[in-house]
Amino acid sequence: MDKIIPETLKKVVEEISNLPGYGEKSAQRLAVNVLSMPRGEALNLIKIFMEMLEKVHPCKECGIYTEEEICPVCSDEERDRSSICVVEESFDAFAIERTRKYRGLYHVIGGRLSPLEEITAEDLNIESLIRRVEKYPVKEVILATNPTVEGEATASYIYNLLKNKGITISRIAYGLPFGAVLENADDFTLSKALEHKTPI
Amino acid sequence: MDKIIPETLKKVVEEISNLPGYGEKSAQRLAVNVLSMPRGEALNLIKIFMEMLEKVHPCKECGIYTEEEICPVCSDEERDRSSICVVEESFDAFAIERTRKYRGLYHVIGGRLSPLEEITAEDLNIESLIRRVEKYPVKEVILATNPTVEGEATASYIYNLLKNKGITISRIAYGLPFGAVLENADDFTLSKALEHKTPI
Repeated sequence: MDKIIPETLKKVVEEISNLPGYGEKSAQRLAVNVLSMPRGEALNLIKIFMEMLEKVHPCKECGIYTEEEICPVCSDEERDRSSICVVEESFDAFAIERTRKYRGLYHVIGGRLSPLEEITAEDLNIESLIRRVEKYPVKEVILATNPTVEGEATASYIYNLLKNKGITISRIAYGLPFGAVLENADDFTLSKALEHKTPI
Repeated sequence: MDKIIPETLKKVVEEISNLPGYGEKSAQRLAVNVLSMPRGEALNLIKIFMEMLEKVHPCKECGIYTEEEICPVCSDEERDRSSICVVEESFDAFAIERTRKYRGLYHVIGGRLSPLEEITAEDLNIESLIRRVEKYPVKEVILATNPTVEGEATASYIYNLLKNKGITISRIAYGLPFGAVLENADDFTLSKALEHKTPI
């Protein structure tokens, strides 16, 4: 009965379902959304996707997505070159930039160690991080991978590679998120929040 | 600080966020997913999207997405032409086809009435449904819009347009989904499941 689904639509849904974080349903939704758009708008969407693919690539230094050879952070003379903040993806760096609290450099490893998705250290930009730490006068590396089991494992993996290089290695703090309800916090977060209590 | 995000990437995220069901986060995820693909695969994804946009369009009769002028259901001589099943989207029809329990025709209205999203009856293919009912020897219309508040409102709207045309109008049944835990069912579903109890 699957003959009823047009071949090209089936192919699009199949390809999108293969993207991480997408299932069949969300792939169908995306395909239908694009099909329901006025044709001109849909073609425009594809055009800007093409433009993005042509222009955007990882910064040669840190891996942040940029349209230049070297990203605005790495090429900014005023940034503190003694500090590197390691993140999983460019958007994590963009989020940290929004806080305006960090003036150092970044390093995007491009994911996290994940045995389930068969992502190993070789698939991540970890070697280039070690090279940067060895080449430049780096004093601190902040491990800002996500506070998940996989992000945690990735942080310890990098910690082990860097621990004997005579630099400070920090991990972003665990604690209660702003607006959270204490009663609903998970035990791990709550115990970390207590452990790292700060004097007022 | 938003200068750090490449312009073309920002544009893609903005456009995707405008699609129904997408927010900024899911749009970012999609953009990053496409950027992280090997360039060849990303271009291939765009190519098959283009192919889909070129070939797939709504069936002239019922509105199901098809690569033909008339979809496989409408052009199948063996389908029961006295019954029309009204669905919100093509994928709803595809799902019903998978059950192999329905042998009539479909009518895709292309969404649901939604005051919040400013979708009114004029935005949906309802007029063409009325024309089909008047033109062909239709005996039954099954309203299979989603069992949601908006789907329900859409079903009653169509019911009111059709109720004086001397045909049977049905609504797909409410009840407990297979595998559900009775204790966790919402009151509305549970009361409908009792109301429509069937003899064994």
